[in-house]
Amino acid sequence: MIKQISSLQNPLVKRLLQLQEKSRNRKKEGVFLVEGVREIQLALKGGYYCEAVYYCDSLFPAEKVKDLISGMQDITEFSAEVYEKIAYRGSTEGVMALFKEKDLTLDSLDLKAQNLLILVAEAPEKPGNIGAILRTADAAKVDAVLIANPKTDLFNPNIIRSSVGCVFTNKVAMGTTSEIIEFLKKNKISIYAAELKASKNYDEIDFKGSSAIIVGTEATGLSEEWLENSDQNIIIPMQGEIDSMNVSVAAGILIFEAKRQRGFS
Amino acid sequence: MIKQISSLQNPLVKRLLQLQEKSRNRKKEGVFLVEGVREIQLALKGGYYCEAVYYCDSLFPAEKVKDLISGMQDITEFSAEVYEKIAYRGSTEGVMALFKEKDLTLDSLDLKAQNLLILVAEAPEKPGNIGAILRTADAAKVDAVLIANPKTDLFNPNIIRSSVGCVFTNKVAMGTTSEIIEFLKKNKISIYAAELKASKNYDEIDFKGSSAIIVGTEATGLSEEWLENSDQNIIIPMQGEIDSMNVSVAAGILIFEAKRQRGFS
Repeated sequence: MIKQISSLQNPLVKRLLQLQEKSRNRKKEGVFLVEGVREIQLALKGGYYCEAVYYCDSLFPAEKVKDLISGMQDITEFSAEVYEKIAYRGSTEGVMALFKEKDLTLDSLDLKAQNLLILVAEAPEKPGNIGAILRTADAAKVDAVLIANPKTDLFNPNIIRSSVGCVFTNKVAMGTTSEIIEFLKKNKISIYAAELKASKNYDEIDFKGSSAIIVGTEATGLSEEWLENSDQNIIIPMQGEIDSMNVSVAAGILIFEAKRQRGFS
Repeated sequence: MIKQISSLQNPLVKRLLQLQEKSRNRKKEGVFLVEGVREIQLALKGGYYCEAVYYCDSLFPAEKVKDLISGMQDITEFSAEVYEKIAYRGSTEGVMALFKEKDLTLDSLDLKAQNLLILVAEAPEKPGNIGAILRTADAAKVDAVLIANPKTDLFNPNIIRSSVGCVFTNKVAMGTTSEIIEFLKKNKISIYAAELKASKNYDEIDFKGSSAIIVGTEATGLSEEWLENSDQNIIIPMQGEIDSMNVSVAAGILIFEAKRQRGFS
């Protein structure tokens, strides 16, 4: 049976609002909201467990809810007012779902391929940049995206939106910089750290063996720990007035140079 | 003599607020505000004419104003309240300046180099993406950035901020798609249009001759006019769940493939 909620005072509405706004609440409950058909489909495809679905009848017909998630028991219809209050996206599609978080520790990674290609971002901050990095990782089909010393949780509605849902289908894990360095070394993955002062151009590297490409923040670059533990620090030669690029652009240039060398296979 | 303003009702304050918020007002007056030391320096370096400087004494000492722009007559000290009301940036530096717009038509371009490298973005919308594209263009020292069918004016405070001021030092021009195609053909610059369905991988192109790389919007790609008038449509091979990358990342990958082929010179 489908429940109906039209009051902004309803406890579920208040709870979902908190989940949208606060990383702390997502962490405490271990759940998060996903808005939009494509994003929900990608979360399901990525193996995330869906607990409940909410829709707004005037935007998304009830019968389509069942097509989207078969066998779902917990379905609630929201009034337009309630739906719009909770929805984070401007051009909202009228359907959102509550998903359980997954284990994103390094131990959860099961990397079996040969010649791995891994993208590591240290302490990325802006959701838009994280989303763009995840889209690049998706396009390049990298074996994993590792977030070192994360500043935000990945299930922030802005990251879900700017990644167009591929935050769910990428293999993502998080850890401290030390943990990730240890993980890469243990797995015999060469570490290439992007640095503004490195002497080696990125295109002089042979990325065909197992490689991890590491990018830091735009403000402070990578931590010393990465620069000291890398197999080679690499630079994207820049010739302009300002000596920095957007971090997601830099990551894209480096990852696709590796892809080019590998014949995009 | 330095003027002082501490009232939010002052006509100058109201005028500057409108300039920050409304493209229409910038266009009508032909002026725009630039915040921050580095951004002001780059605007001066880019040959923009500075009409007036405003600073907040508690954030930026008066004597430093003269170091920043020598010979400036029109200097006004704002109270903290007034300064913060007008400033667009969160972590504001306490100094902003009023600059005159420049001619950004195609006729204003004076391209003398051989083997030009030009980046064209059609109808880019998000200021963050435009800023990232301008930073890539700066790093690659392209000969020009052309905005086809622009959706916004370039002197939007968000674009200035996200470009870190290199909107002023890049050679930028705007025009309709038809005008830019005509311009490129007249100057014998090969047109390479990025398209999701193109059959030719971007790395199979020889970018060493005069080349223009054209990117479209993430939502709809490039207009038919570009695809029909290109010398070659090119694709970045993607293997993921979602078949799109961030437009500024795609532009970065294509421009730096051209740079790589040219030995970054």
